[in-house]
Amino acid sequence: MKNHIEGAPSESNFKLKAESLNLRVEPGSNDVIVKNLYVSIDLYQLNRLKSYSSSQEAVSAAARITPGEAIDANGVAKVVVSANPEFKRDDLVVGLISWGEYELVKGGAMIRRLEPMGFPLSYHVGILVFVSGAYGHLVGQYAKLGGCYVVGSAGTNEKVAILKEKLGFDDAFNYKEETDLKATLKRYFPDGIDVYFDNVGGEMLEAAVANMNLFGRVAACGVISECADDSKRAVPNMIDIVYKRIKIQGFLSTDHFDLHQDFISMTCDALRAGKIQPLEDISNGVDSIPSAFTGFFRGDNIGKKFVRIAGE
Amino acid sequence: MKNHIEGAPSESNFKLKAESLNLRVEPGSNDVIVKNLYVSIDLYQLNRLKSYSSSQEAVSAAARITPGEAIDANGVAKVVVSANPEFKRDDLVVGLISWGEYELVKGGAMIRRLEPMGFPLSYHVGILVFVSGAYGHLVGQYAKLGGCYVVGSAGTNEKVAILKEKLGFDDAFNYKEETDLKATLKRYFPDGIDVYFDNVGGEMLEAAVANMNLFGRVAACGVISECADDSKRAVPNMIDIVYKRIKIQGFLSTDHFDLHQDFISMTCDALRAGKIQPLEDISNGVDSIPSAFTGFFRGDNIGKKFVRIAGE
Repeated sequence: MKNHIEGAPSESNFKLKAESLNLRVEPGSNDVIVKNLYVSIDLYQLNRLKSYSSSQEAVSAAARITPGEAIDANGVAKVVVSANPEFKRDDLVVGLISWGEYELVKGGAMIRRLEPMGFPLSYHVGILVFVSGAYGHLVGQYAKLGGCYVVGSAGTNEKVAILKEKLGFDDAFNYKEETDLKATLKRYFPDGIDVYFDNVGGEMLEAAVANMNLFGRVAACGVISECADDSKRAVPNMIDIVYKRIKIQGFLSTDHFDLHQDFISMTCDALRAGKIQPLEDISNGVDSIPSAFTGFFRGDNIGKKFVRIAGE
Repeated sequence: MKNHIEGAPSESNFKLKAESLNLRVEPGSNDVIVKNLYVSIDLYQLNRLKSYSSSQEAVSAAARITPGEAIDANGVAKVVVSANPEFKRDDLVVGLISWGEYELVKGGAMIRRLEPMGFPLSYHVGILVFVSGAYGHLVGQYAKLGGCYVVGSAGTNEKVAILKEKLGFDDAFNYKEETDLKATLKRYFPDGIDVYFDNVGGEMLEAAVANMNLFGRVAACGVISECADDSKRAVPNMIDIVYKRIKIQGFLSTDHFDLHQDFISMTCDALRAGKIQPLEDISNGVDSIPSAFTGFFRGDNIGKKFVRIAGE
């Protein structure tokens, strides 16, 4: 990162540093050198790249990054050299790695060995991980598996078609073609909304609250519209919230690690049975990371965004 | 009610109708004629007096009132004539009565016999009822009984002194003397806020969310600032809500009737032991109702507002 980001990220916030690394591990250090294969592009990363006033301490949950530092991300890597008995050369690992080609993982911390289970490597930083806020296309598929009536919202007609035709949503609309989101949601949910999974905040949250049924629930997962533009803040009608007894619950997936094993086994079964379709958008090469990241906040990606840094 | 109310209520929205009533009950009708003694002035009544666009359907939970109709309210009354075997002359009753001196209660519906249990009659439309949103002074006392650190907010220094000196709050402040509510709450809650009982919405809700701890909870009970002025809407920071996993839960007391008996027995015990102080603000006479109601939305009342229509 070259400088802290204000508002939407631009490629000029980043600098690709080309240097010849001289990495070595000392015997007994438990350090590991890895070659990075895939990194995930995620919403929460932007919050780590902003500068914050002291009143915005919430985000300290995810460690902030200061200018000049390399940016880390969830990813898949391969062990090149290991001084750690838990890892050996050519092991695949998953965990917190950096936006870079090679790196030294101190003490082997924040990575664990990966068993691909017959799935593509990208699945292990995508559908089989539940740490991000950009998974609306998966949330809708899980809701369908659970018997819900599901309507998705996306920013291009191509994405809308994918939601309906490929992913089996009951319906979907292009929010950029709508002028009155409250009326839009009323049209798609004539009987009201019971559950809104919120990745965007802003006007969409307001419109969802306005169309919610009694005892409706909002799972507040991410706020992409507000992350990139502070002026786009949600003004939900609190009178609706009281009278309709609406619950808005913020959450991070890390609060629910007790459900992780169930999630993995359910998801693997659904993938193998073809009941869930992963939707992946993959850029190639470490130098594509800045455009992948900035494009993510413009909605350029179709599905979960990754950068494939290298092949195995 | 003379006309629908927009924004804050004014006395001109109401008309006192003086007429000689010719009330009679038919044998076998189950009707009851009552003399009204106390009526409660409550936040939710304003929502029933507004005109609503079709998109604001939430409020249908509480039946709306149309111009020309008498306004009903929780209150205490005394039976004058009864054709209902459940009630006899001079019985005290509690329930939904009207802003008026005498009335016919069709079929004896919406009232029940009242056993005063040694408490003043006003307690039975105030502290011993849990249907309103203007009980911050009681909520704080219950929280103290439960071992919480409690800070109250009020609109005059006199009220602030009562909260601290009479009601035992740990601290209190006059929000009208504060220019930056976020900084104010930071000062009163250096360790953050775990629970915010919200009766006001607007800026106070925003400031509370900004100062909440991880997994903080907002009980959304009423929105007095927004009821009387649509431009005063809360813009809580959704990024805070996600990262701090804040829960905002709207509720009406009617959702919790299963707890009503426990509430009554706990409250009676606390009252008899002097551990809870009711705070009552009583106007006299049916003609004082419009000023009592409009003053309530200006914060003129100190404690729970009633109108005493008549003595026993």
